[in-house]
Amino acid sequence: MALIVKKFGGTSVADKDRIFNVANIIVEDYKKGNDVIAVVSAQGDTTDDLIAKAKEINPGNPSKRELDMLLTSGEQISVALLAMAIEKLDCPVISLLGWQAGFNTDSNHGIARIKKIKTDRMKAELAKRNIIIVAGFQGINKYDDLTTLGRGGSDTSAVAIAAALHADCCQIYTDVNGVYTTDPRKVKTAKKLDEITYDEMLELATLGAQVLNNRSVEMAKKYNVELEVLSSLEKSKGTIVRENTKMEKMLIRGVTNDKNVATVSVVGLKDLPGVAFKLFNKLAQYKINLDMILQSIGRGGTKDITFAVSRDQADDAIKAIESLKTLFEYESLHKDDKVSKVSIVGAGMESHPGVAAKMFEALYDADINIRMIASSEIKLSVLIDEENTEKAVQVVHDAFIS
Amino acid sequence: MALIVKKFGGTSVADKDRIFNVANIIVEDYKKGNDVIAVVSAQGDTTDDLIAKAKEINPGNPSKRELDMLLTSGEQISVALLAMAIEKLDCPVISLLGWQAGFNTDSNHGIARIKKIKTDRMKAELAKRNIIIVAGFQGINKYDDLTTLGRGGSDTSAVAIAAALHADCCQIYTDVNGVYTTDPRKVKTAKKLDEITYDEMLELATLGAQVLNNRSVEMAKKYNVELEVLSSLEKSKGTIVRENTKMEKMLIRGVTNDKNVATVSVVGLKDLPGVAFKLFNKLAQYKINLDMILQSIGRGGTKDITFAVSRDQADDAIKAIESLKTLFEYESLHKDDKVSKVSIVGAGMESHPGVAAKMFEALYDADINIRMIASSEIKLSVLIDEENTEKAVQVVHDAFIS
Repeated sequence: MALIVKKFGGTSVADKDRIFNVANIIVEDYKKGNDVIAVVSAQGDTTDDLIAKAKEINPGNPSKRELDMLLTSGEQISVALLAMAIEKLDCPVISLLGWQAGFNTDSNHGIARIKKIKTDRMKAELAKRNIIIVAGFQGINKYDDLTTLGRGGSDTSAVAIAAALHADCCQIYTDVNGVYTTDPRKVKTAKKLDEITYDEMLELATLGAQVLNNRSVEMAKKYNVELEVLSSLEKSKGTIVRENTKMEKMLIRGVTNDKNVATVSVVGLKDLPGVAFKLFNKLAQYKINLDMILQSIGRGGTKDITFAVSRDQADDAIKAIESLKTLFEYESLHKDDKVSKVSIVGAGMESHPGVAAKMFEALYDADINIRMIASSEIKLSVLIDEENTEKAVQVVHDAFIS
Repeated sequence: MALIVKKFGGTSVADKDRIFNVANIIVEDYKKGNDVIAVVSAQGDTTDDLIAKAKEINPGNPSKRELDMLLTSGEQISVALLAMAIEKLDCPVISLLGWQAGFNTDSNHGIARIKKIKTDRMKAELAKRNIIIVAGFQGINKYDDLTTLGRGGSDTSAVAIAAALHADCCQIYTDVNGVYTTDPRKVKTAKKLDEITYDEMLELATLGAQVLNNRSVEMAKKYNVELEVLSSLEKSKGTIVRENTKMEKMLIRGVTNDKNVATVSVVGLKDLPGVAFKLFNKLAQYKINLDMILQSIGRGGTKDITFAVSRDQADDAIKAIESLKTLFEYESLHKDDKVSKVSIVGAGMESHPGVAAKMFEALYDADINIRMIASSEIKLSVLIDEENTEKAVQVVHDAFIS
């Protein structure tokens, strides 16, 4: 007998057949004697459809408070339908909206943070041996207004319930059967991971492996909630996400790539004190997130600074720097958005100095030029030409994972 | 400066253009300095679509609790969209779900009764000069579960708010511009009424003029809420419903007809004491609502009893009587569903003995045979052959209203 929290995304409850598929997964665990709480998102494209309705009425910007009022109806429909399916399977069930399940949030409509979960109602329903279906993504603020947790919020809802009720595990059902060493649709030798740490999972998510919402992983780490990422369509073990994983031969957990990258170069910058400070301070004012800063060694009284930003921020970065033209001199500004970032992630790599060398060697052997390098404790990223992305992922993956 | 409660049905908010039409009606009254609370139903066919989704999942019967969870999402969408439209028109507005507006009901899911309206939130929003958009048809029970008030419940929501906040009037917007003396689509000389009493309105509604939900009229009468029935599509005065109307020349408020009628006749019933009691007692057990009972004068030790029921109950009535076969004797049972009921309604008619004679004369002149007669304080109904319905309505209308 365990308390299991399960989360199902919108595609998992998109139509009648899928709803019954999910209902059967829930009922199977319930009938084994477990307590089951399932968190669900709005069906299929419901949220996007509702946003479209709002934009039709007020193309500018409807208030976030009313948008939350509108969007929360989406999960309301899916929890009711899923509960009806479980009733049809003759199991006791009750659906709860976010506020009924006790989700108290702050008042930042659209991106609300959970402040507290009042667990009384959920505990009472579990005591009655009811299966509970909770509307994900939503809560209520202190004024009794409905709020939403932002994109991917249902993952966060599930982890928060698991943390608040000290659940034995939190299973996140997706359309893939676990976390892979790289995208299995592109690299045939990609391997499913049995286990991964929270930090590794966070790096993978940040680097574009969109299996789990980052906030939910951070919360799971904070409250030490064991996650399992698994498929709602096939019956197999998924990937466990926890603090400490068993020693494994595998040093590198995954290889990812991110094409939402551009570089901006400031060439021929007069080499005076404070220039770099002024530059990066201005970029911060423009709320531009930098990555992989590269500064050339000064020669002839000038230097070059290149940095990476997300592609949609590249033009803003250019603007920010141009606004400094009166403050300091440079020869020219360049943008290059034909680049991409390939990264390896693994908690053990910091203590293995050979890792970087092995990655660079694999790229060199494949004739791929490395333009920039960045590293953190558990991650090593290189910037390369975009056209080489798939080849780079393949050769790096082959070098580390076999 | 007045407090005005307005109610808009599902067709009035069915699409973007209609939503803005409603938003403009609300804003116009608000800008005159009035406080405005608008109660809205789910858009167009939303409720029916949601019911269809539920039936797809559980064709038998989904629990009423989950059905209420599902259906209440309908008004949630319409209040949010209407609030967004009013925001677009630059007026301060807030949407409230039934429970946020304070609708506390009993736990009879699907047909819940309002127990109390906690008006704090609405009062606070009015004090901020916010327009309030309230989701009709819904409330919350003492367990914090969502409930619905049943079909036509939005009318009831509007009247309940008007009563609780002592509103100056409660305007019910429909697709007709008021209450007519008879169906204006069928009788060209039909006249719009300026005023009508609650009791007259109730009789008209019962008799098939489906402008206002009966429960809402009963509540308006109980709390003395002045109603106005008017069109959301054309700008004109509607019909006021209140306790005492100004003296008018018009004695009869309206002529209605109801084709959902059948007669059942028990012929040759042995004329013994208690026979009628047993018969009507059994019909009551079968929950059959009777109307217009006619008993022939006993002759030769037998009598005939004929009564009217709604058509869908006629077969049940036959079954109920057949179940008595062992208890008392009769010669035969007959059903006739080719009949209809034509009624005149008017609060003053009881004190005018000529009214019945005038109605019968009009029917006689038109060669229409009267099969049964029933009357109440403010209503006189006759049962006639169905094929004569339209002609009867026309000649009776002409006799009283010109």
